[in-house]
Amino acid sequence: MNKLQTDLLIIGGGPGGLLAGTTTARRWPGKRITLIRPEKKALIPCGIPYIFGTLGGIEEDLLPGQDQLRAAGIEVRIGWVVSVDREHREAVLDDGTLITWERLVIATGAEPFVPPIPGRELEGVFTIHKDYSYQDHLFREVMPGVKRLAVIGGGFIGVEFAEEIRKRGIEVDIIEMMPHLLIKAFDEDICSRVEEYLQAKGIRIHTSSEVEAIEAGAEGHVNAVRLKGNKKIPADAVLIAIGVRPNIELARTMGLTMSQHGAIMVDAFQRTQDDPTIFAVGDCAQKQDFFTRREGGVLLASQAAAEGRIAGMNLYGLQLLRHNVGDIAVYAGAVGELAFGAAGMTAAAARRADFSIVIGEADCLDHYPAAMPDTVPVHCRLIFARESLQLLGGQILGGPTTGELANAIGFLIQTRATAADIASFQTGMHPRLTAASHPITEAAWSALSVEEIQ
Amino acid sequence: MNKLQTDLLIIGGGPGGLLAGTTTARRWPGKRITLIRPEKKALIPCGIPYIFGTLGGIEEDLLPGQDQLRAAGIEVRIGWVVSVDREHREAVLDDGTLITWERLVIATGAEPFVPPIPGRELEGVFTIHKDYSYQDHLFREVMPGVKRLAVIGGGFIGVEFAEEIRKRGIEVDIIEMMPHLLIKAFDEDICSRVEEYLQAKGIRIHTSSEVEAIEAGAEGHVNAVRLKGNKKIPADAVLIAIGVRPNIELARTMGLTMSQHGAIMVDAFQRTQDDPTIFAVGDCAQKQDFFTRREGGVLLASQAAAEGRIAGMNLYGLQLLRHNVGDIAVYAGAVGELAFGAAGMTAAAARRADFSIVIGEADCLDHYPAAMPDTVPVHCRLIFARESLQLLGGQILGGPTTGELANAIGFLIQTRATAADIASFQTGMHPRLTAASHPITEAAWSALSVEEIQ
Repeated sequence: MNKLQTDLLIIGGGPGGLLAGTTTARRWPGKRITLIRPEKKALIPCGIPYIFGTLGGIEEDLLPGQDQLRAAGIEVRIGWVVSVDREHREAVLDDGTLITWERLVIATGAEPFVPPIPGRELEGVFTIHKDYSYQDHLFREVMPGVKRLAVIGGGFIGVEFAEEIRKRGIEVDIIEMMPHLLIKAFDEDICSRVEEYLQAKGIRIHTSSEVEAIEAGAEGHVNAVRLKGNKKIPADAVLIAIGVRPNIELARTMGLTMSQHGAIMVDAFQRTQDDPTIFAVGDCAQKQDFFTRREGGVLLASQAAAEGRIAGMNLYGLQLLRHNVGDIAVYAGAVGELAFGAAGMTAAAARRADFSIVIGEADCLDHYPAAMPDTVPVHCRLIFARESLQLLGGQILGGPTTGELANAIGFLIQTRATAADIASFQTGMHPRLTAASHPITEAAWSALSVEEIQ
Repeated sequence: MNKLQTDLLIIGGGPGGLLAGTTTARRWPGKRITLIRPEKKALIPCGIPYIFGTLGGIEEDLLPGQDQLRAAGIEVRIGWVVSVDREHREAVLDDGTLITWERLVIATGAEPFVPPIPGRELEGVFTIHKDYSYQDHLFREVMPGVKRLAVIGGGFIGVEFAEEIRKRGIEVDIIEMMPHLLIKAFDEDICSRVEEYLQAKGIRIHTSSEVEAIEAGAEGHVNAVRLKGNKKIPADAVLIAIGVRPNIELARTMGLTMSQHGAIMVDAFQRTQDDPTIFAVGDCAQKQDFFTRREGGVLLASQAAAEGRIAGMNLYGLQLLRHNVGDIAVYAGAVGELAFGAAGMTAAAARRADFSIVIGEADCLDHYPAAMPDTVPVHCRLIFARESLQLLGGQILGGPTTGELANAIGFLIQTRATAADIASFQTGMHPRLTAASHPITEAAWSALSVEEIQ
């Protein structure tokens, strides 16, 4: 039996595992770090839709972290852990290697969730995988023959995948159970704007639509998606992009405590409930809402990366230099020239959490005067708690600055800024780079004006 | 004698006066508002360089506020105030009209500063004026005949004007007294990058250069700028863009208390030292540094607009919903595809203020993977106070998101975030909209790593 001794063993090679490794290398120099992952080549998940349109193939640099891992002196092993002995700090790999460790980071990520729809096993039904060979096969062998694609799930990945595929001239239908696409991240009017954009590009949208079955033709290959109410959508390929579920099989066999939603329970430093030398990060780790501390939050690569850094920072002792402040979910997306970004709670989510809210809104242009080249409208909506006027969330619909505006809203949520703070803050302006009045301070001001202050 | 009674009299039609008016109309409905300004048509100051290149002329919507003023029901009078009787709350206009008011906002702005250089009165020597007719004359009648322009002053306006003019094929020299262009806003390496870009476009840069005289040819028209050391720069037009000085003539005749630097002394609500019913906003009003509370700060349209809003909000009573938190100077600029933005103190300014500092830096791309279209590098530098690790300032060199990244740094300064806060904050990421790792959190993390934490 091969034996290997390491200081830090990381199980999983996604953003959480990668950043746990590189952060440890920097923060605790001299430690031996070993990373185990099943994929020979792994992809950046949020880059996957662009393989099929914008990028026209899998670029070498969609395979992240190779250079960082090498530079940090991290040993990478392709394989998987078959068993773990927590007491003796030992793991056995699929090739029989026995690894002993000082610290363990579990970063086993998530698996695409495929509900038990009849026909889901048919030829021509796919999910989004981070594995290079799966996506490469999809790009090189499947897509060139596809004439009509049905996307089940109208979240970020579904919407962006649909738009990129549509660029190749393929007919696309999006099927969503909720009344709107993207409704977890945005309030209705913004969802409607994205829907209108997609429809104008020729994408058919079916909301409030439940899939009953995926159906096959005579030759056994998928040929339609059947919805409740007996509506049939013809399709020669189906992409299921409903979401992901934490991959916790290994953690379960280790006897680690799981959260109510089936993720590994962790504290503010990503340490498991059960053992301060075992950390969990990313999609497999429990998420806690920033405001309510209740379990919840979306699974995002950016969040996994942040958690990987927190684990690395605190691996051999806590300093409160980096900790998990709670999940606020900052994200952005784009279809064509229309970008959309969000941070924190939507109005609907805030009301569900039992907040009374005040909404502030602002509309402007992203450059000024309007005659400046490439000027597009920006819409900003901010959601505040009614009494404290603390910022709960915000949404942006706009152009190339949308992602950073969403990040700025995220920063303001995490510093617990109020509408009065934000309205008082100075911002810079420049004809080519910003609006004439900042959409975030304007929206905060609009929230203050909504209040009847005497 | 014509008599006019108003509730709010605003003297000056720049961003400060405009926003004081529109904010009052919204916050205190029913008040009569009168705004006096000398310019029949006034320009957005930071848009002026673009008249000469990108925009190819003066666009109607470079004349700001006409619609907002009308929509807010504000009466605009073209003219100026010749005398003020503070005791009786009366002002006399140049046409003899007597106006009485309840509240007064002084927003008389600033004048271009032209040092006593011999030859400054020659034909062919210009400054930057907000007056439409002056710029229109410059654009229509002067520039078409110019073959070689010398710009005196290498700040934002000088640099952007030079680049826009260069686009028209005109030879351009920039003359700057300091060792670098833009050195008040950026540390040296970023200034150097901008200088290299301008030089690559064929613009000649003369730093550490003092102007001794502007010289005329035989026909009396300017034909050169003479520097100390007897270097001569041929030029058939000279633009003086050294900066501006508060326009406080009227305030002085009113007997208002002036600050040490010659601006109208105001409190956190823009009220003058002398009378809580008289407010001053914008370039004519005193600025106070956010960190040290010492007098200082740059004169910016965005700051004037913010102060106008603060005055309007607090005109008939304080609520602490909006106040002046102190000046941090957030700004951005761009030459060609290279954008640069800054907020707060440079490293040099922080050291001059007697801070011990830690600098964190990050380099990344503004999209990922690198093969995504229009991807450009982003450099982020953050300056922290050494012991508290509170954010003092930051600088960005990058692409279209530069302005909003500078604004995000501004927000973080104003919420008094520390490097540990920022490194812990979640950010979103998207291949088309952001970097793979956020430059601001990365730079904060780099500052933490610089510290020897045991």
